[in-house]
Amino acid sequence: MTDRARQPDRCVVVGGSTRTAAIDGISAAGATATQRRETPAADLEILVFGRPTPDRTVPVSPTGTPTPAVVTRAVAVETGLSVLAVDAGLATDTLAPTLDVGAEPGADIRAETAVPDAETYWERAAAIGRSLPVESILLGETIPGGTTTALGVLAALGERRAVSSSLPDNPTTIKAETVETGLAASGLPPGDAAGDPRRALRYMGDPVLATVAGLARGALATGVDVTLAGGTQLAAAAALLRHDGVAAPLRLATTSYVADDETAAMADLAADLDLSLVVTDPGFDRLGHDGLAAYAEGVAKEGVAMGGALAVARDAEPGLSAIRARTRSLTTSLTDAMEADPA
Amino acid sequence: MTDRARQPDRCVVVGGSTRTAAIDGISAAGATATQRRETPAADLEILVFGRPTPDRTVPVSPTGTPTPAVVTRAVAVETGLSVLAVDAGLATDTLAPTLDVGAEPGADIRAETAVPDAETYWERAAAIGRSLPVESILLGETIPGGTTTALGVLAALGERRAVSSSLPDNPTTIKAETVETGLAASGLPPGDAAGDPRRALRYMGDPVLATVAGLARGALATGVDVTLAGGTQLAAAAALLRHDGVAAPLRLATTSYVADDETAAMADLAADLDLSLVVTDPGFDRLGHDGLAAYAEGVAKEGVAMGGALAVARDAEPGLSAIRARTRSLTTSLTDAMEADPA
Repeated sequence: MTDRARQPDRCVVVGGSTRTAAIDGISAAGATATQRRETPAADLEILVFGRPTPDRTVPVSPTGTPTPAVVTRAVAVETGLSVLAVDAGLATDTLAPTLDVGAEPGADIRAETAVPDAETYWERAAAIGRSLPVESILLGETIPGGTTTALGVLAALGERRAVSSSLPDNPTTIKAETVETGLAASGLPPGDAAGDPRRALRYMGDPVLATVAGLARGALATGVDVTLAGGTQLAAAAALLRHDGVAAPLRLATTSYVADDETAAMADLAADLDLSLVVTDPGFDRLGHDGLAAYAEGVAKEGVAMGGALAVARDAEPGLSAIRARTRSLTTSLTDAMEADPA
Repeated sequence: MTDRARQPDRCVVVGGSTRTAAIDGISAAGATATQRRETPAADLEILVFGRPTPDRTVPVSPTGTPTPAVVTRAVAVETGLSVLAVDAGLATDTLAPTLDVGAEPGADIRAETAVPDAETYWERAAAIGRSLPVESILLGETIPGGTTTALGVLAALGERRAVSSSLPDNPTTIKAETVETGLAASGLPPGDAAGDPRRALRYMGDPVLATVAGLARGALATGVDVTLAGGTQLAAAAALLRHDGVAAPLRLATTSYVADDETAAMADLAADLDLSLVVTDPGFDRLGHDGLAAYAEGVAKEGVAMGGALAVARDAEPGLSAIRARTRSLTTSLTDAMEADPA
């Protein structure tokens, strides 16, 4: 009945890396800094194959909660949603087939320049977005440290400094300090990049955010229906589009875990940026599975297009309860495989 | 009931190019030599999206018969068979997400060396084959000129010189002369590369054949069930595996159009190489569509894993008649799009 009831042609997930993720305590997208380098590559493999390659472990938070990639995979299996993976600066090889924008991993935003070639990635991604032979896409991300770079971009653009986290106790102080240090190192007063989204990305962003924004820009330009699928990172992508002059309606689909997170300030961000907000409650607290119940306590919360995928599933057969069951069985099989063969 | 009744995890299609395809009259995989450069990239897009990107035309033979990619796409849509595209030396960019072995287009086999880095591509593909988190694959190709390079490889290995064609009147004389010239230019007497498949590829092969053989080798080594899906090119891949010491049972699935082609000598090749042969009749002569009926008259015949995909469909719901109907509707929509917007 609504436009959300029509299944998107493709769930596009952009994976990459920023050295910002190596800052101690900043991200839960992987149990250790070393494992966080592998998380995006493993996430894309889980999306495409249902499991990572044999020499890789399943990304989990430091407390053992599995990556949101498992949830999006569950939606793909249950609803037939097709995934398209994009490599925007992965730190390691992936066995998932990808479209490649030729990006390098992003630098720590505390350096002067975070993404020297941000404009190039944006333009390449826009060319992809203009050429994709699809009518509608969900657009999500996988990049550890991405909520901090998103905060940096929002600050550079002069937007609300909303910040979510894959940790239940959001290390907002570390993130805010990281952004302040980065702005100072870049000689960029807050708001100084307003109206110049590529400059905000170059000094404070990451290659995934540049690619997501460019992809959305190109796709929107040719009439593709775009749903931004995620939390503050996708809101930052929306901000980049607004500062690039995009006036068209934009839709952001996220989980209730992010929407209920005060520091993420999603309703305010959505109002600031004129986004229609679609919120879906995964209901993992009712599943009787500790690792997944932790989502409801603020672990992971969102990522890998999870919120958008769940919105698709809610309006499709066989609905959210089937997604919960499939998420649980996928999680169990992945966890069992890890225990049988600790890589 | 049989092992063919189990749907493969993935239909792997390896795309690439050889300058051998520029020889006049050698290939029907594209209406002109210029369009043949685009055929593999467009084939992969059709497999993944159902249509090529807006700036590209649908590959057709010089007489207007559509690419076999449409048939494999029809199987993917009707049976849920997942496609995995591999870039092994594409001559143009593709919007299909790919695994990339980093290959350059192959040289004309009439030059001394056809694929200088054949061994590197083989090893990279083998690493992919060993790591793919799947249990079974169909393995096919898209490379214009590929039946000629396959003939070259069979000659270099000292195997039966079988050769099929995407043309109804197979230009066997041109192909045989091309191979003789190539063997002479390489200083390679026929059969001189027996037991050394990488040498055969280096002097007489193409990057797709090196990648297909390496992928199969790696996948077989880790217990993945591999079905070679195609005609003489996949038989050449089987020959490469046999000359690399693979003694395990191998299965080759192809169309009745190739199996009925005397110059392709599929039954003899299968006997020589100890392959179990699976033959499927697409039945396009009964469809009342001129472009598709031409398949039964020897145009196109096979390619892009078509024969293997049809074997999957024959044993699955909703069966081959649904594939024929879907192939027809896809062909019509692609042809209409071309007529509406001749790119």
